[in-house]
Amino acid sequence: MTRRLRVIGFGMGPQHVTPEAAEAIRSVDYLVAFAKGDRDDPLLAVRAEVARRYGDPPVVVVPDPPRDRADPADYPAAVRDWHEARVAALRGALEERPGDVGILVWGDPSLYDSTLRLIDGLDVEVDVVPGISAPQLLAARHQIVLHEVGAPVHVTTGRRLREAVAAGQDNLVVMLNSGLDLDGLDDWRIWWGANLGAAGEALVAGRVGDVRDDVLAARDAAKAEAGWVMDLFLLRAP
Amino acid sequence: MTRRLRVIGFGMGPQHVTPEAAEAIRSVDYLVAFAKGDRDDPLLAVRAEVARRYGDPPVVVVPDPPRDRADPADYPAAVRDWHEARVAALRGALEERPGDVGILVWGDPSLYDSTLRLIDGLDVEVDVVPGISAPQLLAARHQIVLHEVGAPVHVTTGRRLREAVAAGQDNLVVMLNSGLDLDGLDDWRIWWGANLGAAGEALVAGRVGDVRDDVLAARDAAKAEAGWVMDLFLLRAP
Repeated sequence: MTRRLRVIGFGMGPQHVTPEAAEAIRSVDYLVAFAKGDRDDPLLAVRAEVARRYGDPPVVVVPDPPRDRADPADYPAAVRDWHEARVAALRGALEERPGDVGILVWGDPSLYDSTLRLIDGLDVEVDVVPGISAPQLLAARHQIVLHEVGAPVHVTTGRRLREAVAAGQDNLVVMLNSGLDLDGLDDWRIWWGANLGAAGEALVAGRVGDVRDDVLAARDAAKAEAGWVMDLFLLRAP
Repeated sequence: MTRRLRVIGFGMGPQHVTPEAAEAIRSVDYLVAFAKGDRDDPLLAVRAEVARRYGDPPVVVVPDPPRDRADPADYPAAVRDWHEARVAALRGALEERPGDVGILVWGDPSLYDSTLRLIDGLDVEVDVVPGISAPQLLAARHQIVLHEVGAPVHVTTGRRLREAVAAGQDNLVVMLNSGLDLDGLDDWRIWWGANLGAAGEALVAGRVGDVRDDVLAARDAAKAEAGWVMDLFLLRAP
């Protein structure tokens, strides 16, 4: 019998678990979740709470293989090695325990999430359940539409922001930020958010030149409160 | 006392109503919904079903003002007139009936939805609840991530597809299609879907040159089955 693996987007917590996600969580024999070194990982705690509320399947914690944070000579190779270590860890967890499996995905599996790439090639029957994503919650909190009437929105990463602006993009959602490189964009407008729907939630909006310091301070405060920070923003040309 | 107006994304139906959306629906005195000429509007029927399942508040149907479909000499003015007629119709409905109001939004209020623009300027206290959007469900059904590793995704409309491709975009989500203009893109890959999560759901994926006719046939079949069709696709350069 083919095993089933359900990839389940749960948004930012129990408040976003759709009926079809709840049904998926209830249907599996267990959930697997990657976790950093210690079991006090606050992101793991949210997954555990989601599981508890929806049928309480066991959560099997898979230690996330360490990633070489030094600047390796061969960056793509380092990323590939890390990916392969994660695939091996996941495969090991699945071999140890029979039954149907669920993987809880923060936000939505379709945006900047590695789960679908990790399970590619496993001998399982996959289905995917969508979840509320961070850009949607950012827009909801700021009560905005992500684009001007009939116009596009370009979704990219902090790493690629400069490249997109240079190519003429004037309305961008920027995810996966490590810093906040907004030099020269003083007259653009920003709608920023951190830890949306979770501990440390913070929002700032305004002209970049006016609110940049507020954003940096709010980012630090969110990290201090929650122990982690994930932020994103909409950036629009004047 | 300030009235509350809650803008509630409900995804594609009851299966996507998050706990916070359900709470919002239960909290209002009534819902308003725009409807085309007749009350047999199948899109209205889905909203009515969502309401019925979550506390069953009354649904006040606001006839959608007719839009001039002829090619007016002044297109922007015609759009503006239509927008103002809708604002007036909504304002009228709110004046007739006191209490807190909810507006159910198909998909998510942050993408190609006019609700937030319609209520701008009303004397109400607004909040917004996100919902599962069509691009997320498209990705879930096809079991894909919407972009290559760390790369951007450009979200735009059928009208602006050509412009985006000419500007070098090579990974696009295209919404609000009326036709399907893919000439010259034979070697691109497409992941297409129609009426996702609803009657007439259809999926096609492949090389554009190989599957274009399948997409057109599936689009017609979806429309024949449901009485309406809404489609979208991810398009990726070779």
